[in-house]
Amino acid sequence: MFFEGSEKKLEIIVDAAAPKLRSLDRTFWQGLVAASNADILSSISNDFCDAYLLSESSLFVWDDRIVVLTCGASTLVESACYFIEHIGEQAISYVCYQRKNEYYAHLQASSFGDDVLRLRDFIGGQAYRMGHLDSHHHYIFTTDKHYQASPLDTTNELLMYHISGTVADYLRGEHQSTEQISQLLQLEQLFSGFSVDQYLFSPLGYSINGIRGAEYFTIHITPQENSSYVSVETNIDISLNQVDIFAELIVLLQPNSCDIIGFNSHMANKPALNYVCLSHCAMTLEQGYNIHFSHYQQDCLEVLKPILL
Amino acid sequence: MFFEGSEKKLEIIVDAAAPKLRSLDRTFWQGLVAASNADILSSISNDFCDAYLLSESSLFVWDDRIVVLTCGASTLVESACYFIEHIGEQAISYVCYQRKNEYYAHLQASSFGDDVLRLRDFIGGQAYRMGHLDSHHHYIFTTDKHYQASPLDTTNELLMYHISGTVADYLRGEHQSTEQISQLLQLEQLFSGFSVDQYLFSPLGYSINGIRGAEYFTIHITPQENSSYVSVETNIDISLNQVDIFAELIVLLQPNSCDIIGFNSHMANKPALNYVCLSHCAMTLEQGYNIHFSHYQQDCLEVLKPILL
Repeated sequence: MFFEGSEKKLEIIVDAAAPKLRSLDRTFWQGLVAASNADILSSISNDFCDAYLLSESSLFVWDDRIVVLTCGASTLVESACYFIEHIGEQAISYVCYQRKNEYYAHLQASSFGDDVLRLRDFIGGQAYRMGHLDSHHHYIFTTDKHYQASPLDTTNELLMYHISGTVADYLRGEHQSTEQISQLLQLEQLFSGFSVDQYLFSPLGYSINGIRGAEYFTIHITPQENSSYVSVETNIDISLNQVDIFAELIVLLQPNSCDIIGFNSHMANKPALNYVCLSHCAMTLEQGYNIHFSHYQQDCLEVLKPILL
Repeated sequence: MFFEGSEKKLEIIVDAAAPKLRSLDRTFWQGLVAASNADILSSISNDFCDAYLLSESSLFVWDDRIVVLTCGASTLVESACYFIEHIGEQAISYVCYQRKNEYYAHLQASSFGDDVLRLRDFIGGQAYRMGHLDSHHHYIFTTDKHYQASPLDTTNELLMYHISGTVADYLRGEHQSTEQISQLLQLEQLFSGFSVDQYLFSPLGYSINGIRGAEYFTIHITPQENSSYVSVETNIDISLNQVDIFAELIVLLQPNSCDIIGFNSHMANKPALNYVCLSHCAMTLEQGYNIHFSHYQQDCLEVLKPILL
């Protein structure tokens, strides 16, 4: 029943020399996700953004940028190479490639080090690890080209491991519906006014993309016992929200541990109720991004049963 | 500068049908450690035990049992197969094969799952994981043959990650001596009356074996910054000791995190000063072993710098 829910993530920003990305035809995007060994399942669009639900997570396309998340043993680094090769390195302003904390790194097609070598065949950049190797950590590669991001260019990522409680039980149950999951997670309240596209995987798993103007959120749930993982990502400034979206989702899903990653976020170092922040790591890129990584664990001794393998 | 200090460990107990293991010639033991891609560097002996220092950790031989620890990318499972093949499965009473929490599992020659499949070609047994996949965890394979261990058959293992402070600085320095390391760790006081055999590795690293009658201790230090690891293991009942050996070593080496593993130990769940126990897992084997695993981390937020890769 093991599935690696933890994602790789790619963001690429292009300059004015590139075509408007939303004008590229579907074949291009099918090729891009195929390079990761993923398929397009469905899509929604508005005036700013096309949001694709993938067999392995999500692709968002704006005229000047893309965000792709892929999970499992997908090869997202190949989608990065595909994009740079087709659009041309000169038209690329900024690339950020991330690998989140994996359960079974040894089952992946490549290590992060391998991925960095592959990326450097196409574009220059720096690679970092945030967090200790033997605890939760986050890998990030960013290009070193001249580019200046707006301080308002924000991303907030909440990554939850080992969810528990009634919502987790429902997600692991025999029968689910997208409506019920959406309701249990209070998504209409937490992300109001978003158009959404949801998908229920067999035997288990749930994905949702939401867009509202140029804003997006995406949630992916791998509920499998002993290796459950839920990711939530959005470019809205959640610190301005009346409701603390991440705090609400943590209360609903009761993860044993979670990571919060922010780009130009105002969420850095925010204490989470009943959780202890075990480590924090921050860095500032010349390109105008303040990046922070924080690893939290429930503030109590967890007594575990041995797992028969 | 990366080296995987974290060990695999093998313990095998034989019955009266087997030859007295200490009567086997050196060629046999050279073959055994060669199967792990290790060499014998030196040895000490007394009336009960032969203790070998290896290029990759340690081998202890008593008449009825062996304990082998190997680090790096060694293939200790092959030493288990070598031993069972040469001595004969019928003469084996008990096998315990462990893999401790690794920094880079993907750089190992095999996964624990692979190792279990390989072992089962030679002998039956159960495999377990103690601890969450995304936090520190411990793998253990044990045979299910009829065997009854004495409640006094105890082992205590202390595994320290990310050491810091003045002793750690000395261990990472330009020049060290075995005498100075032994003195800084107060080993003569903590393990008094033991005959010892020490080795300093180049460029970094330190090993010591100690024996006193049928008792042993062994310490292996991989001091490399960002992936440091120190293991301490002994079959003495440290709960009877006047000085709390593990507590002293934790104070001296100031690890960011540590695991304590016990077999019929009275150390289970002992709180460590300034550390929080994040998870605990215990199980009892029919063969007469109570096994416990506890994962501790320093009780403070650790602010980390990003690591440029």
